[in-house]
Amino acid sequence: MNKPLKIAIAGLGTVGGGVIKAMQAGDNALADRAGRRLEIVAMCARDKNKKRGFDLKNWVGDPRALVGTDADVIVELIGGEDGPALALVQEALTAGRHVVTANKALLARHGAKLAILAEEKNLALKFEAAVAGGIPIVKALRESLITYGVVAVRGILNGTCNYILTQMEATGRPFGDVLQDAQKLGYAEADPTLDVGGGDTAHKLALLAGLAFGTAPEIDSMAVQGIAHITPEDIAFAREFGYRIKLLGIAKKTPYGIDQRVQPAMVSAGTPLADVNGAFNAVMADADAAGSFFFEGRGAGDAPTASAVIADIVDIARGNIGPVFGIPARSLISLTPTPSGSASSAFYLRFQVLDVPGVLAEIAGHLAEWRVSIESMIQRGRAPGEAVSIVMITHETTHASVGNALKTIAASDKVIAPPCMIPMEAR
Amino acid sequence: MNKPLKIAIAGLGTVGGGVIKAMQAGDNALADRAGRRLEIVAMCARDKNKKRGFDLKNWVGDPRALVGTDADVIVELIGGEDGPALALVQEALTAGRHVVTANKALLARHGAKLAILAEEKNLALKFEAAVAGGIPIVKALRESLITYGVVAVRGILNGTCNYILTQMEATGRPFGDVLQDAQKLGYAEADPTLDVGGGDTAHKLALLAGLAFGTAPEIDSMAVQGIAHITPEDIAFAREFGYRIKLLGIAKKTPYGIDQRVQPAMVSAGTPLADVNGAFNAVMADADAAGSFFFEGRGAGDAPTASAVIADIVDIARGNIGPVFGIPARSLISLTPTPSGSASSAFYLRFQVLDVPGVLAEIAGHLAEWRVSIESMIQRGRAPGEAVSIVMITHETTHASVGNALKTIAASDKVIAPPCMIPMEAR
Repeated sequence: MNKPLKIAIAGLGTVGGGVIKAMQAGDNALADRAGRRLEIVAMCARDKNKKRGFDLKNWVGDPRALVGTDADVIVELIGGEDGPALALVQEALTAGRHVVTANKALLARHGAKLAILAEEKNLALKFEAAVAGGIPIVKALRESLITYGVVAVRGILNGTCNYILTQMEATGRPFGDVLQDAQKLGYAEADPTLDVGGGDTAHKLALLAGLAFGTAPEIDSMAVQGIAHITPEDIAFAREFGYRIKLLGIAKKTPYGIDQRVQPAMVSAGTPLADVNGAFNAVMADADAAGSFFFEGRGAGDAPTASAVIADIVDIARGNIGPVFGIPARSLISLTPTPSGSASSAFYLRFQVLDVPGVLAEIAGHLAEWRVSIESMIQRGRAPGEAVSIVMITHETTHASVGNALKTIAASDKVIAPPCMIPMEAR
Repeated sequence: MNKPLKIAIAGLGTVGGGVIKAMQAGDNALADRAGRRLEIVAMCARDKNKKRGFDLKNWVGDPRALVGTDADVIVELIGGEDGPALALVQEALTAGRHVVTANKALLARHGAKLAILAEEKNLALKFEAAVAGGIPIVKALRESLITYGVVAVRGILNGTCNYILTQMEATGRPFGDVLQDAQKLGYAEADPTLDVGGGDTAHKLALLAGLAFGTAPEIDSMAVQGIAHITPEDIAFAREFGYRIKLLGIAKKTPYGIDQRVQPAMVSAGTPLADVNGAFNAVMADADAAGSFFFEGRGAGDAPTASAVIADIVDIARGNIGPVFGIPARSLISLTPTPSGSASSAFYLRFQVLDVPGVLAEIAGHLAEWRVSIESMIQRGRAPGEAVSIVMITHETTHASVGNALKTIAASDKVIAPPCMIPMEAR
């Protein structure tokens, strides 16, 4: 058998601990797959005294000290788009070490540049764990769905959001209450902004788009919306229309550029993405002539994520290096975003209005001004004088048209809350 | 760039034609991914004069003559578990050529032996296209879901059967009629035995089990049942109980060995496998601590299958060779099948009986003799004296117990057709 592959790990949280425990437990079986032993030669984390449930062998004081060891592979599990994670990955690649990372923020921001650095030295920079946890979607886009090209990816990429939306649907409770429960159960962070605001989904989507379209990952031009404004009423209306609300990351090739968006969307009940429940992740990839492929599984947690990290390490052990994003990093093209607001779809609209004469005429008038036409409408009666909800499904139109119409409508003194718009995503 | 990878193709049917057309169309993009050009240096098929929609360049008269060319990779798309396909693959490997094949029958029968031959010479023997068409499930099991081991795979692996069952459900028409339509539409072969009898699913399942469990592919011990006995009535009752009937290939690790079966099963409505419609394929892989992963996509057709063949070729071009079944072929262990009939589950049972006094008592009595207990029952009244259907769902029991009880029941003169038993598969 070949000489062992030496591994150094920075960051010993949930994922790092999972990697170490799984490598110890799977020692011989993994060596059989890797064609050589996998040997952890160094590790580090912020706090040496924290109880972690495994022995801290080969501890070093600082992530950058890992580059000074004889490790072949540096596993970066620190997180953060700059700072120590970026410094470590840059120094590791510069020093001729392969890198495995779960850091979506880092790669969404610096992925193309780091890929060039890696490929100049024939090094691996692998990141299966950065997107959708244990689902091998990075490998599938990089190595499998390559013949006809991928023209669209749609994903449920944040387990926290999907858990919250699923719970809101099951219990009828509002976002804030369900979020608090999720925090108590460990399904949401103390500061949930990155998850519920859509930022985490945006990072992951940028990587999927890069793999799918051969573009340098790009997030600055991405329209990103979270789930905090979704109400139990929206979810109930969605069900009435035969839909479920999911936070989707969507990246599509269009004649006008790449349309990349993160937003809650109405997904037809009974289609695969609509049926993804709880903390699961899923990706639908449209591989043109080869058809659509759907992948679902656990997107977070120690074991699913460790599974992805270790698969990357075994790839490196076997010499399966290859370009970081599937094509040479120097061939990645800059992403041309579609003009803002140009994406078109049907929309779900909800207005909270005073129950006074003329309100519907006013709303309908403003929609007509922007050529937004209505396919169906529900208005539920309440006691006279109380606020009521008017809900509509539009025919296909652009985000810009709806956005403009809603701006005018929101200014009306009969409309007592910001209108809600949710695009309908076809399967 | 490196020197081109030279490819010879045997078999120019749907898949072979798809491979050639896609390689011509994707020339530059594929070279970018492969790190070198892909060049078709020879091809052959049974009939040179058939119209195929592409130029027959570099034609040779006989599959074995391909080994005489300077091809690096032989693509075997002839089919059949022995004969010319086996001869070609053996000779290609012996002569030091990599092999890519879509031939599930060949590998289910000779896979372990051919893998040893390939690995002795550091050659690739790749077969993504042999299972579930364009779904990258072979790669996922071989390279991704490897950390915690896979303890069970369940798959809808035959698009013809799934199409027929979906059509039977949609139209209420019997198996024979729907099969005839499927034949006219090209969804079923003139001789449909291998598809509707479960044999094709068995070949694919044997390969998935080998990849999942590190066992040499084995089909002789597999219990295989097709779908010809399923009636529209069974499908309607399934729906009433909240299930759909799917032909599944199931391979599970148990304390008593590997349970490998092909059979129609009741799958809970709303779970991913139950929602797979038409000619699609899908696989659910239970990766132990990492959780379950679900993959769905097109399992047949020129483009999805060509997509899998070309992904294998690009892997070879990049030097991603690795062991054929994920672990070294010499380490594959012989599969120990579970004792026949020992698998346990709940069952759906349907009896066609004469509507005479005592018939239910007789059936219930025989079931009780074999300790099969009933969870629920439906009996629909018809005109007195006519045949009626009695349908039951049992509590969990073994295939052997139910089989024995049904044998006794079938012998009764009040039972006018062979009883039908369909296991209930939990998600």
